[in-house]
Formats: sequence, C-alpha cells, structure tokens
Amino acid sequence: MIEISDNKKITINKDRLLFRLEEMSQFGLNKKTGGIDRQLGSQADKDTRRWLKDIWEKDIGLKVTVDAVANMWGSYGEHLKNKPIVFGSHHDSVPNGGKFDGALGVLMAMEAIQSISDSGIKTRHPLEIISFTGEEPNSFSVSTLGSKILCGRLTKKDISILHDRNTGRPLTEAIDWLGGNSSQIDSAVLEKGTMTAFLEFHIEQGQRLYRKQQAVAAVSCITGIYREIISIKGEANHAGTTQLQDRRDALCAASELCLAIEHIMEDFTSIAVTVGHMQIIPNASNIIPGEVSFTIDLRTAFPEDRKKALAKLKERIAAIEKKRDIKIIRRLNLDQPEMSMDETAVEAVMKAIEKEAQPPMKLVSMAGHDAANMARLTKTAMLFSQSVNGYSHCPQEYTAPREVAIAAQVYLDTLLILDKELV
Amino acid sequence: MIEISDNKKITINKDRLLFRLEEMSQFGLNKKTGGIDRQLGSQADKDTRRWLKDIWEKDIGLKVTVDAVANMWGSYGEHLKNKPIVFGSHHDSVPNGGKFDGALGVLMAMEAIQSISDSGIKTRHPLEIISFTGEEPNSFSVSTLGSKILCGRLTKKDISILHDRNTGRPLTEAIDWLGGNSSQIDSAVLEKGTMTAFLEFHIEQGQRLYRKQQAVAAVSCITGIYREIISIKGEANHAGTTQLQDRRDALCAASELCLAIEHIMEDFTSIAVTVGHMQIIPNASNIIPGEVSFTIDLRTAFPEDRKKALAKLKERIAAIEKKRDIKIIRRLNLDQPEMSMDETAVEAVMKAIEKEAQPPMKLVSMAGHDAANMARLTKTAMLFSQSVNGYSHCPQEYTAPREVAIAAQVYLDTLLILDKELV
Repeated sequence: MIEISDNKKITINKDRLLFRLEEMSQFGLNKKTGGIDRQLGSQADKDTRRWLKDIWEKDIGLKVTVDAVANMWGSYGEHLKNKPIVFGSHHDSVPNGGKFDGALGVLMAMEAIQSISDSGIKTRHPLEIISFTGEEPNSFSVSTLGSKILCGRLTKKDISILHDRNTGRPLTEAIDWLGGNSSQIDSAVLEKGTMTAFLEFHIEQGQRLYRKQQAVAAVSCITGIYREIISIKGEANHAGTTQLQDRRDALCAASELCLAIEHIMEDFTSIAVTVGHMQIIPNASNIIPGEVSFTIDLRTAFPEDRKKALAKLKERIAAIEKKRDIKIIRRLNLDQPEMSMDETAVEAVMKAIEKEAQPPMKLVSMAGHDAANMARLTKTAMLFSQSVNGYSHCPQEYTAPREVAIAAQVYLDTLLILDKELV
Repeated sequence: MIEISDNKKITINKDRLLFRLEEMSQFGLNKKTGGIDRQLGSQADKDTRRWLKDIWEKDIGLKVTVDAVANMWGSYGEHLKNKPIVFGSHHDSVPNGGKFDGALGVLMAMEAIQSISDSGIKTRHPLEIISFTGEEPNSFSVSTLGSKILCGRLTKKDISILHDRNTGRPLTEAIDWLGGNSSQIDSAVLEKGTMTAFLEFHIEQGQRLYRKQQAVAAVSCITGIYREIISIKGEANHAGTTQLQDRRDALCAASELCLAIEHIMEDFTSIAVTVGHMQIIPNASNIIPGEVSFTIDLRTAFPEDRKKALAKLKERIAAIEKKRDIKIIRRLNLDQPEMSMDETAVEAVMKAIEKEAQPPMKLVSMAGHDAANMARLTKTAMLFSQSVNGYSHCPQEYTAPREVAIAAQVYLDTLLILDKELV
C-alpha cells in the first residue's frame, strides 16, 4: 500500500458506476411506467440487498454486516485505529419512483470505496459504506427508518406498533425478513463519537443546479419540516335552498386558506409550503361541505421565517373564521427542526468542488435525508448533483452521465479530504 | 252528499294530522340522532307503505293501488266523469333526514281528502292522492324516480342498469320488493291529459318564509339544475424541493376556482351554486397535488342569468389556466331546465292563501321536486310551508304545529278552488 498525497490523483471508474446504475434499476422496475417500485419490505428491496451484498463482498472485498434494523454495512480497513468515516445512502424507493433517488448515493459510495481500494492507497481511517433501511415515506408510515434507529430517534417500542396500512403486516416482520433482528433493535443504536464523519450523496430533487447548468453543490443545511392538520367546521346544508348569507361553506373557507398558505411562499422565499392532503365531508355534489380537513407541510432552514409566516397565517385564519362564521382548528403533526451540516465537513465538499473546477455552490436541502439523523451522531456533509427539470419521486427522474461522473469524482475527493483533515 | 259552495267552510283536523306525523316519524327513526332513515328500498320504506295503505283503506275509505314503479295511489270518487285532481308527495327520506320532508306532503294530502270525505261534500272531480317512490337522492343514483317514470323521463331500460352502489342490489329488485312490477314498468307511464291538475305540498327547506315569519307561499317555478364535473390537471411534485415558480399545484388552482364560483352568487342573486364534491390526487401531505376534480351544482329559475354566469366563469377558468400553466377540463353532468308552475293553479294557491288571511308570497323552489315532473303532464302547483332556520335533510328539520295547520288549511282550500275552477 502507498500513502495518499495531494500529488496522487485517484479517479473514479465512470463506466463501472453507470453500468451498475443500469443493473440496479432492474430491481423493482415497473415495466409499464419505467418507474421503480422498491418500497421497504418488498421483494425488490430484498433482491437489491442480495445484489449489493454480492458486489460488496466479491467485487469490492468488503466485510458485510447487517444491523438489527437491517441497515447494510460494508467495511474496509478495519485494522486502522481511527474511527471510521461512514458514507452511503438508501436503496429503497417510493412507489413508481426514479432510478437515481437513493440508489445513486449507494452506488457512488461503492464506486468511491472501490476506487480507493483499486488505487492501493492507504487511508488514515477505516471506511464503511451503508445502505439504509426504509428511507422513503412508505406504507408503514415511517421514513428514514434506518438512520432514526441509529441515532435513537425511534426505539423498539415505537416501531413495534407500526403495520403496513394496506396489508396489516407488522414492520418488525418486514425488518426480520430483510435480515434484521427486530427483537434486538436497540442494539443498532450508535453512540456519538463512534464515527469520524458521515457523507451522503443525493440528487438535488429540485431545479436550482439545473437552472444554472451546474453539476454539484454542497448542502449547508437540511430543512426543518413542520406539519399541521387543519380542521374547518362549517355547516352542511342544501345546495339549492341555502342562500349565500346563510352558507357556512367549509370548502370555500378552505379555498381561501389554501391561497393564503400558497401566498406565504411569495412573502418568504426560504419557505416551501404545501397543502397536499384534503378531505371533504360529506363530499356530495348537492350538499354544501360542512367540514374540511387538510394538511400543511411547511419547510424552511430558517426558523425565524417560519415563525413570522405562522404569525401571519394565524391572522388570516382569524379573519376567515370571523368573516365566514366558521371554526378552524389547528393541530401540530410534526415539528422536525432544521439540521445544519458540519462546517468542516461542508468545507471539505467545497474544496473537492473547487478541485474538480466546478463553480462553488451551497444549497439548503428542502427534502429530508438520512444525513439529518446522522448529523446527530457525527460530522456530516452532503453532496447534491443536478436533477434534470428537478423531477423527483417519478419515472422522469434523471441525472446525465456527465453530471454523475463529476459528482462521483467530487464525492471521492471529499472522502480523501475528510480522511486527511479529520482526526 | 252536498254541493260545495263558498259559504260552506271545511276545516282540516289539525290534531289528527299532527298525530299521524308523530306516528309516521317512527318508521326509520334513528334513535341515536333523532333523524329519519327511510331510503328507497329499505325496510322502513316498506313498513311505511303498509302503514299508509291501512289508513288509506280503513280510516279514509280510499281505493288503494300500486303502479309498476311502486307509487302508491289512493282514489276517491271514481264514479265522477271528470279527470281526477291528483295530490301528494313522497314518504322516503335521505339518510339521517328529517320528519317533515316528503312525509308532511303525504299526510297533508291524506288530511285534505279525509276532511272532504268527512264533510260529505261532493267534488266535481275524482280525487287521487299519491305517495311517490324514491324521490330523494339515494344509493341507486336516481331521484324523483316515481314521477320520472310517470312522465316518461325514465324508461324500463334506464332503470334496468341501476344498482345500489353499496350492496349491488338491482333497482328493479327493490321496486318489485316494494310492490311494483319492474318487468312492466312502462305500464305506469301516463299520457298528458289524464289528470285535471297536480298539487304538492312541501316544506320550503330554505329560510325565506322563516325570515319573514310567514307560514306559507305558492311556488312559482322549480329551479333548473345544471351540473358540471371539473378536472384540473397540474403536476404532482415534491412538497419540499419544488419552488413556487415551478409549481403547477392543482389544488391551489381549484381553490381559486371555488372562490370564483362562490362569487357568482354575489353577481346573480337568483343563482345558488355549490362545489360539494372534490377529489385530490395523489392526496399525500408531502406531494403537491397533481390533479383535482370537483362538481359544480348551479341552480336558477332564470336561464339568462345562468348563461351570463357561465360566460363569466369561462373567462375566469381561462385566466387561471394561463396564470398557473394548468389544464382545466369541463364536463356537463346534468342540465335539467327550470319548470314553471301552471298560472291558473298557482293563482288557486294564492287565492287560498288570501282566504286564510296569510300575506301573499310566491317563491322559486331551489330544490327539485316530483312536481317538476308532474308539470310535464298536467296543470301543477306547489305550496310551501315555513322551515324553521331553513334546516333540511337533517334531524333538526322543523315546522311548528301552527304553521303546519295553516298550510294544511290553505292546501285544502286550494284543492277546493281547483275543483271548482278547472274543467
């Protein structure tokens, strides 16, 4: 083995990476839509794991282990004394999702560790790649499952009550079937300080890089996610005989509120806010809606903006209640704070971007990621690549080979910088 | 028998009417809500028919027949040469409906015919009371079933394809079970000119009489009902990563359109318009809605107003499509024209109102009624009584005994005027 130095350039194997991306895309491929169905606990989830294990062990020479929540770990250089640098992403998908989300993060970790191994250089830290269990929203009503268990945000008790909302299958059964050990789930929990750093690659899922025709960006912060469930209580009544002044139409009130919520994004460009789910009661064409409930999903990395936006919303809600003689009830559903990435680790990504002669760019991630959980345990950074048209969670998801290759090289460079700079 | 003259005052038996109203309210009584569950084809529907038949035959002395669609007919004075005056309403209810809707119209017809019979006077026309089959919206997706068959708006073929959307039971099976003969359904069809007139009593279901603290009104016209199904095609996308300028949110577009539709009622006071049913796709809290469809129910007795309102709506739709880069598809679902009541028959109601010293009032009915179908066959009029708070299709539906009695007397007077004035 040789020592790494700034003079020695290790390059990733672009063709191997793209070949594996194609191969991995066969697991869960929906032939009708071209999308990927690789949800937590599916046969495709299990098949992908077997394929990954084979490559990790046979092609890359890693030691593969599976923890109690079925996260897959592949380690390299265990003999070294320092604490490992961990990197990876997830291999599951949303229903009819894309080929890149998660998968490319796992493949990039594999490419980086194999390039390092191929080069014969000696790193200062052991390297461990990870493919997380159940990162995507799924029918078990849990997301970033694997990393939440690692950092202690979810416990054995929490997951013991979860079932597939379609089939009734217990989550614990799915975890065990995938190779985990749900009865010992807490054994997967990691203490702070067991790693040197964590790095995740992900496609941006938005259009910011695509608009500037840039390939990569460092993530500065992962958005906070705040959710409310709003219930509007009006009065169901006859669609013909109820005059305008007697109507207490819950859907018209909801419409006003939806537009006020959309307007938040004009006042605060740091905020993304969405009404995605709505239920109307009784939902009959000839009855004025008496009750409407809907969700608000509000994301920002700037809690001060959120505070101001919610104060404005409160005023609007009071005005709508008064004007329409209806009652609006708010219930907090989720309040997940924003998570800043580690400064040193982000700077390592920025240096690697510079090294590959890419324009410097830092972005807030407006989607949640396993990295947000890992940041509770160790110095964490993320690298984004361009998403063409910003498509995400759909078959049209795409990152071109050129951008994939640039991202993979920056990713490898970042790892080597982290290896060199961190204790 | 004696001849009727203006000098002879026949009065209804208020106590008998109110007693029967209480008795009839036991059929389908929902003990939890106090509402009435007497939907088409239910056991309560059948039980009510048996109770009605008993009273019609034994207490009033009518000849009872059931036609092929299971409408119940009770006739008096068949020996007379003139064509009969027909009057009545329906005995079915919406789920968890009120005690008055339909039922009071049947009971008032019974009270009128019994008062006439008790008085010993001789009418010029045979009298026939009717309780229609399936007037209310129901799970067979048909309303005013009995009268639609009578006037030929529905045929055997039309009803042969209808099934209970919850249980799959064929409508023909329900009709036969209630005493009809679905295989001979067309035998129930009536030609124009087989009756002298038709009169229906109904509660107003709105607040116009209640606001003025008046008891009764003549109906001048039954509203036209126009329904569209609107489909908005936007683009489903990630709730976090999709910036405002990239959103094509179908629910925000629907919200704007709902408010524009509500605004129609400010521009045109003759119009009642409602968005009662809405469906959101994919309807997940973290996905921007890609598709929304909803119903428009627009009612007016003034087709010119409807035309102007729809022209304005078209402009608004085009503006929303352009502004939001979405597609809005409109589909006509129902276009039932308004139906004016017969002038002579309405004047008979107005004279009866005057006779009972009630303030004169004519109203447009904003709900559909069997009378709208009967108006295709004969000179038709309707009498409304006050609905307290306008409550309708709910357990709170109420008309006070005083107003019931006034309405019953005006109703009886109207019949006698029609009997006297019409050939």
